[in-house]
Amino acid sequence: MWRDLSPIGRHPDSGGYRRFAWTGADAECRAWFEEQARARGLAYELDRNGNQWAWLGDPDAGDAVVTGSHLDSVPDGGAFDGPLGVVSSFAALDELRSRNAQFSKPLAIVNFGDEEGARFGLACVGSRLAAGELTVKQAHRLRDAEGVSLPTAMEAAGYDPDSIGPDPERLARIGAFVELHVEQGRALDLTGDRVGIASAIWPHGRWRFDFRGEANHAGTTRLVDRRDPMLSYAETVLAARREAQLAGAVATFGKISVEPNGVNAIPSLVRGWLDSRAEDQASLDAVVSGIERAAREYADAHGIELDVVRESFTPVVEFDHALRDELARILGTDTDLKVPVLGTGAGHDAGILSGSIPTAMLFVRNPTGVSHSPAEYATEDDCVAGVLALADVLEGLACT
Amino acid sequence: MWRDLSPIGRHPDSGGYRRFAWTGADAECRAWFEEQARARGLAYELDRNGNQWAWLGDPDAGDAVVTGSHLDSVPDGGAFDGPLGVVSSFAALDELRSRNAQFSKPLAIVNFGDEEGARFGLACVGSRLAAGELTVKQAHRLRDAEGVSLPTAMEAAGYDPDSIGPDPERLARIGAFVELHVEQGRALDLTGDRVGIASAIWPHGRWRFDFRGEANHAGTTRLVDRRDPMLSYAETVLAARREAQLAGAVATFGKISVEPNGVNAIPSLVRGWLDSRAEDQASLDAVVSGIERAAREYADAHGIELDVVRESFTPVVEFDHALRDELARILGTDTDLKVPVLGTGAGHDAGILSGSIPTAMLFVRNPTGVSHSPAEYATEDDCVAGVLALADVLEGLACT
Repeated sequence: MWRDLSPIGRHPDSGGYRRFAWTGADAECRAWFEEQARARGLAYELDRNGNQWAWLGDPDAGDAVVTGSHLDSVPDGGAFDGPLGVVSSFAALDELRSRNAQFSKPLAIVNFGDEEGARFGLACVGSRLAAGELTVKQAHRLRDAEGVSLPTAMEAAGYDPDSIGPDPERLARIGAFVELHVEQGRALDLTGDRVGIASAIWPHGRWRFDFRGEANHAGTTRLVDRRDPMLSYAETVLAARREAQLAGAVATFGKISVEPNGVNAIPSLVRGWLDSRAEDQASLDAVVSGIERAAREYADAHGIELDVVRESFTPVVEFDHALRDELARILGTDTDLKVPVLGTGAGHDAGILSGSIPTAMLFVRNPTGVSHSPAEYATEDDCVAGVLALADVLEGLACT
Repeated sequence: MWRDLSPIGRHPDSGGYRRFAWTGADAECRAWFEEQARARGLAYELDRNGNQWAWLGDPDAGDAVVTGSHLDSVPDGGAFDGPLGVVSSFAALDELRSRNAQFSKPLAIVNFGDEEGARFGLACVGSRLAAGELTVKQAHRLRDAEGVSLPTAMEAAGYDPDSIGPDPERLARIGAFVELHVEQGRALDLTGDRVGIASAIWPHGRWRFDFRGEANHAGTTRLVDRRDPMLSYAETVLAARREAQLAGAVATFGKISVEPNGVNAIPSLVRGWLDSRAEDQASLDAVVSGIERAAREYADAHGIELDVVRESFTPVVEFDHALRDELARILGTDTDLKVPVLGTGAGHDAGILSGSIPTAMLFVRNPTGVSHSPAEYATEDDCVAGVLALADVLEGLACT
């Protein structure tokens, strides 16, 4: 399966993946998913929000066990974040069939659309829409860097944007959702385990900082006459690191947009996006308000107007305790795997869905700890261990 | 003339101009120039490097007096930088004809191509090529943000890229070049003069700083495991301001490019462009080496690789003293204008050509001091004063 999937959306220069929602690379990934479903005799279903499902058994029987992840990527992302979960789901089903497992509940594999939010700036659009965590109105306002709206992009890709919206009936069919994902840190590498179970997802959000000054000639404008927003931006980037360090949290300015962005022009606008996450809500609030306070001080001192907009926010997600304990029991007694339970700073569709249905996550060891980059990695042995663990979990949850 | 020219390449949102080399807006400006030349019965000439000429008299007679400027713009530039010089040249010729002036030397008006360097990152490409200050090989390597090369862009615009290169015969026909330009600072506003004469152009250059770190997930990578190049960039931006302040110079980071530029990804590469200028070479060297030293310190401390590349450089330009004194004499005795002589931090085609032929510049007052922005401005009265001063100069230099 990897062989078919790996060239899609891979950039020849960086070696990284550029699989953005509703683009050609996305369509190829979706075609691959449908093909895998049909090759296994699964019933293929595309829902109103662009999520793909592959069903074994009757979807309407209820209490279904669902596994899967996403196939889209961040700009120049790695091969594993997302696809490992989808590929492992199909492989786990193959494993269960070879074990001749008897299913007592319906089973589905899912590919959620636009998980990374690389194109429209909001993560987990497919699962958010289904769970009603993103309204249709909000979704219609999403625009990519070229100004293309989400409905326009969906339509251009051959989908019907008028049908998006909350999908409680579809979610009500699900008894449990388990997402397998490559670990995005080095916790498993440090403990020496191949596979782990998620405890919680840190609260996290994205804030846009707009620093507005005055465009001017970089050669002829005296320093005292300048209102250069790049200076306030630079001070704020450094403040973000300091505040995060103090709180044991993370804070990152990884995306920027500058106007007019000319070598010989003082910028009129520097727009920087802050991504911040912390163990609990109070710490996160402290970090972000500290950064905003510092930014406002620098901006005021340089005659810069500052607007700070919270673009997205996800509160702390505690995964369902009963399901988590069930996974630990299955993996602890039926196999010789040790299964540490760990928190994570990354958002996932499983986190979005945990508000509606019992969800759990399995992590596969990533020896580099690197993620959202071509250096993201999992060994073949660890991937196989992940598939077997997922197969055990699905067997424990869905088979008699 | 303003009425026809003013809507071309104007962006409806910013009100600024986006007239980039070899684009549609550039072609419209060029068509306007040719039309103005033909309407006045001037001989239109397009040279091998994309510069446009309008001749009165025999170009091959030698010792011609040439005036003009450029019509392209920086991103979201103002209406005056460049076009004021070209429009004033045509208007000054109209004025001289109404005075019934008798020309003893050939006169030409010129529009130099790609002065701002907004698209390919190098300023004054048209005059540099003609003067042999940019080799054909170097020009072929120029690429815009989309990766389109200069030859490809020229060809797409209907020009022959194989004919570019040094053009000494054409420049040898010129006895003096005078460029009128809106002032890009507030010196004339502070002294209360409408028009001034340039003494020198500060030495200036552009340097590209490539900070390379490691792309990683912004949510899951511990601060201690990060190699985030945005931090070193931010420190360097602040160091540039400090070094410039110390030296009484200017230093600006106005253009940036980030990879992968995702909200939830620590960047792998932050590329920042430094523009710096100072009164003399020694001060400029001190500023730039101070910034580079600071950048290297920060980069080393954070595990960031740093490359600094000088992308362009123009040494100090002292305008021809004899021609400058001649202009001061003409404007001082024949009119009641006071004509202060002032230096400037901006580069110009006149600066490039001053290595090959005697050149001079006239500045028209800009009450905002703002340049490279829609706020750039000159009053109608001051523009008229500029036209009359230019007419006086051309009459003094080219008429019996």
